[in-house]
Amino acid sequence: MGDAEYPKVPRSTINRYRPRGKYDYQTIHSIVNSVPVVHVSFATPDPEDPFPAALPMIGFLASFENQSASLDDALDLYLHGYVSSRLMKMGKEGQDEEGLPITVAATHFDGIVLALTPNSHSYNYRSAILHGYATPVTEVDEKLWAMEKITNSVVSDRWDNTRVPPNKTEMTSTQILRIRIVSASAKIRAGQPHDERKDMKDEEMRKRVWTGVVPTWTSYGEPQAGPDNLAGTVPEYVKSFVKKANENGQKRAHEAMVEPKK
Amino acid sequence: MGDAEYPKVPRSTINRYRPRGKYDYQTIHSIVNSVPVVHVSFATPDPEDPFPAALPMIGFLASFENQSASLDDALDLYLHGYVSSRLMKMGKEGQDEEGLPITVAATHFDGIVLALTPNSHSYNYRSAILHGYATPVTEVDEKLWAMEKITNSVVSDRWDNTRVPPNKTEMTSTQILRIRIVSASAKIRAGQPHDERKDMKDEEMRKRVWTGVVPTWTSYGEPQAGPDNLAGTVPEYVKSFVKKANENGQKRAHEAMVEPKK
Repeated sequence: MGDAEYPKVPRSTINRYRPRGKYDYQTIHSIVNSVPVVHVSFATPDPEDPFPAALPMIGFLASFENQSASLDDALDLYLHGYVSSRLMKMGKEGQDEEGLPITVAATHFDGIVLALTPNSHSYNYRSAILHGYATPVTEVDEKLWAMEKITNSVVSDRWDNTRVPPNKTEMTSTQILRIRIVSASAKIRAGQPHDERKDMKDEEMRKRVWTGVVPTWTSYGEPQAGPDNLAGTVPEYVKSFVKKANENGQKRAHEAMVEPKK
Repeated sequence: MGDAEYPKVPRSTINRYRPRGKYDYQTIHSIVNSVPVVHVSFATPDPEDPFPAALPMIGFLASFENQSASLDDALDLYLHGYVSSRLMKMGKEGQDEEGLPITVAATHFDGIVLALTPNSHSYNYRSAILHGYATPVTEVDEKLWAMEKITNSVVSDRWDNTRVPPNKTEMTSTQILRIRIVSASAKIRAGQPHDERKDMKDEEMRKRVWTGVVPTWTSYGEPQAGPDNLAGTVPEYVKSFVKKANENGQKRAHEAMVEPKK
């Protein structure tokens, strides 16, 4: 595992529960590349509007320049959307030369941590926040490569099992944004409930209040063929994807229950 | 079901896939109150920083003034956090009299929609974006009420089965923000894959490309007692919560596969 880290700048520094903060590529990149949805936010062009715009999107980290890059290498974030959307329009007009400043949040919910008192309750989670400049991908090669990456990030091996390559209309109507990341951090909570010393001394109360963890993960159910499907039963690569996704999800949620070493 | 809606303002109007846009209280409120995590974003006080701050948080919609309110009534959003965090500090200092402008995103991932071509792939999802002004809750009664609501929104009936009420330190260290919502919208995608007419005519290709939906939901696993638990086996209300959460999640994901009426 590499040691490369994002720079620790004020906007990315974890101040509350400092030991939960992580800045290394590997940790941050693996969180982003395993969530089904990221939340993107950015200032709107209307100076009268004080509310950032926010959108759920599909995103994926990879490197077009260094296609054999692993999760502990420098990567760009690719986001999938439509030219007609506000974000894509703004990325296109490129507010400044660097691109549109955006913040991306990716969160895994790994479990509910039930302590003696509501104030000590917590979640087990892995969250990452990334800051970067978004510009639209204009090169056909890079765009096609990113479309394939994003499709296969949703269901492994899906791209080659569909009607590809995209036609001219599809290439035009689909917009891919590349985000050059300038800062990022992750925050991870794992392990068992922790209670205040005073509560731990109250044995009568402790006999009454159950403490522990409820593990949580994203389940993928039985794939169901659509009404227009002519391709028979569920193909092996889809079955295998569903099986692995469930196994990994359960595994991570259960690993998160293990108290981390100090 | 009531007909009350949020005002349709430019920032909340759904332009892409317009029929997926919803503005009614019931739809928006039920999305927010059934997600385990919301994503909050807001402009940072540093005018040099172009990136909005973003945080995963726990949130819940309810009305302190009208405690018997249902999901189709006017509600406020309550967020749980810590006084030391940036958001809480800002909410406290109250940039302007109205409070801190924040955007809240809540998203359910209901399934993967596999079409003939990658460009027609989609997710089934229910997402809500809310805009409002955040101020800290200072009244003890309202704060206690909100803490109870938020705790029970994570695990039903948990509050009464813990060591309550919070002591003085806990009351001070826990901060609750109340968000007065000014605009909001939801976007919902449900149903089966839809492909372009040209692809639908290609029977040879259709025999090769499997199309359908993989339903997805948040699973809650077997609760596991912590090392300090003295309260015996998993209590009935926790078991019942886990069972219901799994049933509801699966049910929603499967309902989402039904093609909506035109």
